[in-house]
Amino acid sequence: MKYSYIDHLYCPKCENTYSHEEKNNLCECGSPLLVNYDLDDLKNNLKKEDLIGRAPTLWRYHELLPVTKEENVVSLGEGMTPLLHMPVLEKEYDVTTVWMKDEGLLPTGSFKARGSAVGVSKAKEVGIKEIAMPTNGNAGAAWALYATRAGMKSHIIMPIDAPLITRKEVYISGADLHLVDGVISDAGKIVGQSAHKHGWFEASTLKEPYRIEGKKTMGLEICEQLNWEVPDVILYPTGGGVGIIGIFKALKELMALGWIEKGKLPKLVAVQAEECAPIVKAFQEKKAASDFWPDSKTKAFGINVPKALGDFLVLEAIYETEGYAIAISDEDLLKEQQLVAQKEGAFICPEGAATFAAVRKLKEQGWLKSEDRVLCLNTGMGIKYPETVQEEAPILPKDATI
Amino acid sequence: MKYSYIDHLYCPKCENTYSHEEKNNLCECGSPLLVNYDLDDLKNNLKKEDLIGRAPTLWRYHELLPVTKEENVVSLGEGMTPLLHMPVLEKEYDVTTVWMKDEGLLPTGSFKARGSAVGVSKAKEVGIKEIAMPTNGNAGAAWALYATRAGMKSHIIMPIDAPLITRKEVYISGADLHLVDGVISDAGKIVGQSAHKHGWFEASTLKEPYRIEGKKTMGLEICEQLNWEVPDVILYPTGGGVGIIGIFKALKELMALGWIEKGKLPKLVAVQAEECAPIVKAFQEKKAASDFWPDSKTKAFGINVPKALGDFLVLEAIYETEGYAIAISDEDLLKEQQLVAQKEGAFICPEGAATFAAVRKLKEQGWLKSEDRVLCLNTGMGIKYPETVQEEAPILPKDATI
Repeated sequence: MKYSYIDHLYCPKCENTYSHEEKNNLCECGSPLLVNYDLDDLKNNLKKEDLIGRAPTLWRYHELLPVTKEENVVSLGEGMTPLLHMPVLEKEYDVTTVWMKDEGLLPTGSFKARGSAVGVSKAKEVGIKEIAMPTNGNAGAAWALYATRAGMKSHIIMPIDAPLITRKEVYISGADLHLVDGVISDAGKIVGQSAHKHGWFEASTLKEPYRIEGKKTMGLEICEQLNWEVPDVILYPTGGGVGIIGIFKALKELMALGWIEKGKLPKLVAVQAEECAPIVKAFQEKKAASDFWPDSKTKAFGINVPKALGDFLVLEAIYETEGYAIAISDEDLLKEQQLVAQKEGAFICPEGAATFAAVRKLKEQGWLKSEDRVLCLNTGMGIKYPETVQEEAPILPKDATI
Repeated sequence: MKYSYIDHLYCPKCENTYSHEEKNNLCECGSPLLVNYDLDDLKNNLKKEDLIGRAPTLWRYHELLPVTKEENVVSLGEGMTPLLHMPVLEKEYDVTTVWMKDEGLLPTGSFKARGSAVGVSKAKEVGIKEIAMPTNGNAGAAWALYATRAGMKSHIIMPIDAPLITRKEVYISGADLHLVDGVISDAGKIVGQSAHKHGWFEASTLKEPYRIEGKKTMGLEICEQLNWEVPDVILYPTGGGVGIIGIFKALKELMALGWIEKGKLPKLVAVQAEECAPIVKAFQEKKAASDFWPDSKTKAFGINVPKALGDFLVLEAIYETEGYAIAISDEDLLKEQQLVAQKEGAFICPEGAATFAAVRKLKEQGWLKSEDRVLCLNTGMGIKYPETVQEEAPILPKDATI
């Protein structure tokens, strides 16, 4: 029994193939690469019931992950995050079922841990010693800490405006941290040039093929946690869009394995911020790719991505599942963040809050029906963005009584 | 098959008993109350193998928890936190095995979620609508958010110097938050008077009997995760000491059930801060209870507890397991926090870091042996205390190359 059923890498644009035993970034044609598994072979060797009793981490799906030797797994205990029922919000939004998958309960407090755990593990397996990446915050924090866990050196460049806590996470990991007086695309340029100069491996979003595989485990877990049923709709806060690509890939692989029913794909919804909504614009215009969004800004910093390298894959996932793309104003998403805390006791991040605001809006618009069972992905802990909460409280003297 | 095997409450000091179907705080004699289960009955009805396949939350142990009806469970998905191997630190400290149980991966980012999940659930079961408590931060955040999840009102009083992020957590939950220009004992007095005046239920540490039961699940999980073996030593950052009391109770219950070997208790070590070390002082003087520690202070805010209500139970756990009590300076615990991040990629909290510093010190002193298998409890995420990390990073212009 093999630990992984990975077979090769392929380009979804030009269909070129590559070996997973070598270091790979983009395809020659400039497209991100995807991982292919020998699913026919796996189907004969693994039943979904075999998962019962495995430890509650994303490595329970190791056959569907790219790391071929267990000793290369770099782990901080990531995966099997809670799938919570939100009964108060169901009434508030008037839909049958609202679930939240809480990705805050991961090492480093965000869903970025999934991509970095799998990405760093595979980097270790192919002999990479030094990585470099630009980041808006959470990804850099995750990759820096996992790189340290792997005994690898990391070079992280982030905009000077990125959330302060993520900067501290990178710093304490021992990474080589630089700030740039600019935005993520400026950081990306510095990484590209510096990586080329020093021979560092570029681990930028989708420039390495394995982050998607880590994010894919969100989709695997959702299906397993719902006892191999799928929700009607999954809403995902979309910046680079790796999560939506990964979830779509998970669903297709599970269908190929016969673990979920064929032809019953959940509708995938990309949720963006109003002032950074390139995918929404492309969706409205029925395009296959997005245009660069100039002067993008949003308080949901993690989805401030003006042009995603995998935009065509995100749009494909939306179109093929008969999904949707919707933009939420910062005002609305911050209001919803408060509401989710006050109604359900969950302090979620602004990006996650955008998906709840989207449920409200899509129900009001009639795109969601009362009978829909919807799932919101909260991609991180609220405490990583303390500045989104302006608290007030009376100060009492020592001898007071309320 | 019963959901819970709870039988009654009892006083460990005067042996008075109470019904778990009523609201209870302290015993008439002033001691905290403990929960008794019908373990003989449970032994006949549950095998440890029956746990396999249950969801990875602390509710997998529902037979050993006080909530009698599943519908009263208030959950944000808490439990089954990672038990990580720390291979680099093993060499650093020269001991055979170092594990870390990472309690940061819980709702609200700290181990306080365990006590509040179980405490709030049982409060709901006995009909409590409104709770009040003093807090140094993390407990208040957890109880406020879980109370909201339960549809309960909470009144939280915290010192003005408590960590800012925890204040924001309480605020966003919709709780009634007050700050006091004083320390936790001042907050406690205000809570006592105000709760009495308004008829609120006092949920202060050990003033209600169920927080221990939640914390007990740390001990249950450690044993299950180690395949029903126990470590040689467990180190726990000790403020109120509920965790160490809970772990000790878990071990005794598992022995009574025959799930772990009789007579092989791990040594329990209470780790405190040098400037707030009442348990350490009592241990050195071989006393059964501690004295109030005046002018206590430490950057590990969560263990700034000058006199714990359950001090005699903490000391009993240490004495009965042939454990130890040790104090760490703030300088040493902050240094160790950095080291754990830089060696293992885990950004832990200062309280958790104190346990690693304690391993180093106890090995140097010879109390720990090279062959010992030790387990450190990290009680929360490092990101909840961003002020403990002073980061520095060069700022680059947009067109730079490193």
